[in-house]
Amino acid sequence: MRAYNFCAGPAALPTAVLEQAQSELLDWHGKGVSIMEMSHRSKDYVAVAEKAEADLRKLMNIPENYKVLFLQGGATLQFSAIPLNLLGKNSQADYIHTGIWSEKAIKEAQRYGNVHVIEAGTQIDGKTAITDPATWQFSDNAAYVHYCENETIGGLQFDHIPETQAPLVADLSSSILSAPIDVSKFGLIYAGAQKNIGPAGLTLVIVREDLLDQAKPEIPSLLKYSAQAKNDSMVNTPATYAWYLSGLVFEWLLEHGGVPAMHQINLKKAELLYGYIDSSDFYNNPIAKANRSLMNVPFTLADSDLDKLFLQEAEANHLLNLAGHRSVGGMRASIYNAVPFEGVQALVSFMDDFAKRHG
Amino acid sequence: MRAYNFCAGPAALPTAVLEQAQSELLDWHGKGVSIMEMSHRSKDYVAVAEKAEADLRKLMNIPENYKVLFLQGGATLQFSAIPLNLLGKNSQADYIHTGIWSEKAIKEAQRYGNVHVIEAGTQIDGKTAITDPATWQFSDNAAYVHYCENETIGGLQFDHIPETQAPLVADLSSSILSAPIDVSKFGLIYAGAQKNIGPAGLTLVIVREDLLDQAKPEIPSLLKYSAQAKNDSMVNTPATYAWYLSGLVFEWLLEHGGVPAMHQINLKKAELLYGYIDSSDFYNNPIAKANRSLMNVPFTLADSDLDKLFLQEAEANHLLNLAGHRSVGGMRASIYNAVPFEGVQALVSFMDDFAKRHG
Repeated sequence: MRAYNFCAGPAALPTAVLEQAQSELLDWHGKGVSIMEMSHRSKDYVAVAEKAEADLRKLMNIPENYKVLFLQGGATLQFSAIPLNLLGKNSQADYIHTGIWSEKAIKEAQRYGNVHVIEAGTQIDGKTAITDPATWQFSDNAAYVHYCENETIGGLQFDHIPETQAPLVADLSSSILSAPIDVSKFGLIYAGAQKNIGPAGLTLVIVREDLLDQAKPEIPSLLKYSAQAKNDSMVNTPATYAWYLSGLVFEWLLEHGGVPAMHQINLKKAELLYGYIDSSDFYNNPIAKANRSLMNVPFTLADSDLDKLFLQEAEANHLLNLAGHRSVGGMRASIYNAVPFEGVQALVSFMDDFAKRHG
Repeated sequence: MRAYNFCAGPAALPTAVLEQAQSELLDWHGKGVSIMEMSHRSKDYVAVAEKAEADLRKLMNIPENYKVLFLQGGATLQFSAIPLNLLGKNSQADYIHTGIWSEKAIKEAQRYGNVHVIEAGTQIDGKTAITDPATWQFSDNAAYVHYCENETIGGLQFDHIPETQAPLVADLSSSILSAPIDVSKFGLIYAGAQKNIGPAGLTLVIVREDLLDQAKPEIPSLLKYSAQAKNDSMVNTPATYAWYLSGLVFEWLLEHGGVPAMHQINLKKAELLYGYIDSSDFYNNPIAKANRSLMNVPFTLADSDLDKLFLQEAEANHLLNLAGHRSVGGMRASIYNAVPFEGVQALVSFMDDFAKRHG
């Protein structure tokens, strides 16, 4: 049987998508070969790749003046590719710091230029929160402003899109496709696939065309957005199977009402889980309500000596991967699109039972 | 039914491997989730990753002072990563030029340092060949010597390992695991997975430990061999599913006698196909016998007006992807490990029938 999988990433995929992939794994559409055995330049594969892009454009309502790139290397390689592509001559960028992932992006960008860090994390009544944007000081000559829209490890999410003069660059790795977002407000959006898109090994970059041609001379050729855009992300062989699987996920999303419908279910899932945690004396979530992540719900037990038992019993109940990130400990339930409402119901029911027995 | 797939890459995978992947796609070893839905840091996944490496070490007899890295970005990203990691302070390297892929590596390396190009391609009696190594002039201060062991597009392969003072760096993308090779003669071996290893999206790097710590300051952090070696190729989320599938291919190879046994079958396949081509007035292979590729067999028809018909009829006979690379035209049969002897028999039988009807 399929368990409920709360892994932060590589994360759960829709069962229906895996079933389709399974059925055609050895023989794609009667062609006698697997889709992963096909040339990326074959007519059949190119059609699969183009449909995935078209479906993503539909799902996110991506304007025509944005390129969509299907790359490799994860969001982490984009931590380098973004400054190498976008810093341009002034070599200055603003980075908003809210947690572990934005910090990693900052450290890598500092290797390529001047980074003005806006410290936006704070504590309000003992809860982690994002500071008032009115207090943020942007620099005059920033090539772009970078932020991590949802800090996967901390479970901290922006409740607004920052207003900036410079192009806005967003790491949407763990929140893409979870709620509608106005792409036209961004210069660049990027996301590792392994949370809400598909399997690990694929990275999406959505970039406004006017930002394409400013790459630094030392950039590895494969990381140049302009070259990838010109070659439909096929400067070399892309991660064809991951791209295909992501296309199946996009089809599944469209069949289920697209991002608005998914957002409604995600709101219900989050309300149920946060609501239960708030009503309990046994569990605690460390984030201020306005900045709670819709996708990643960290929580602690009143007695951390029970953590191990909690995880063991959860696993016995087919509720998997609830341990918090190794850097912070505690628990975390990642409730991406592919985790159904029933999964969150089962989790809350188990948490309540556990609290009653051990609280 | 499964067709015979002669694609140069992404290429055929063993049917038995795809069947195993299919059977456990939704539920890996009774865990209730797909292997692609597992954290790369989970105990189960780490065991899969480590076994893949151990099996590869066994297959290639890799000495202990070499690190094995499972990376992303294809051989093309290594065209940048190699000079960025290995050029060091003298910033000089020798590159042997034998075809399209070595040329791509040269062009990228020239962006990072002084590249001394050794022109090693020639024509002997109208056939393409590699020049006598005694005529090659290496530079005194090269940080390394690079060559492409098998030119996938040209179908040209070295019949010896070059003797060099500087560490030898080899692109083995299309020949790795096809024949035994003495790893200890190399400083670094790299290969895109999508020919003889697994699906596209994974790149193997086998690097001698003493070469790890010379990276240039401008290198993207993710491309640093030292960092990846230290973190078991998990500086960030690797291409977990491609890594797993490659592990299944390694198991399949070990079950079938390893690389020596595969080499014997590959020799038989190549002898049959080249032998038939040589015996025919209708088909021609453009490569000198000593430098013919064991894996990629390009050939032309006596009348190129028949190319389209040849491809159509081949496809109707379940013999797929025989078109030559778009840059050279003609035909090419890639006969990697996963293409069985019976596939080459079927191809030769079809070619003979076609020649009799149209010759």
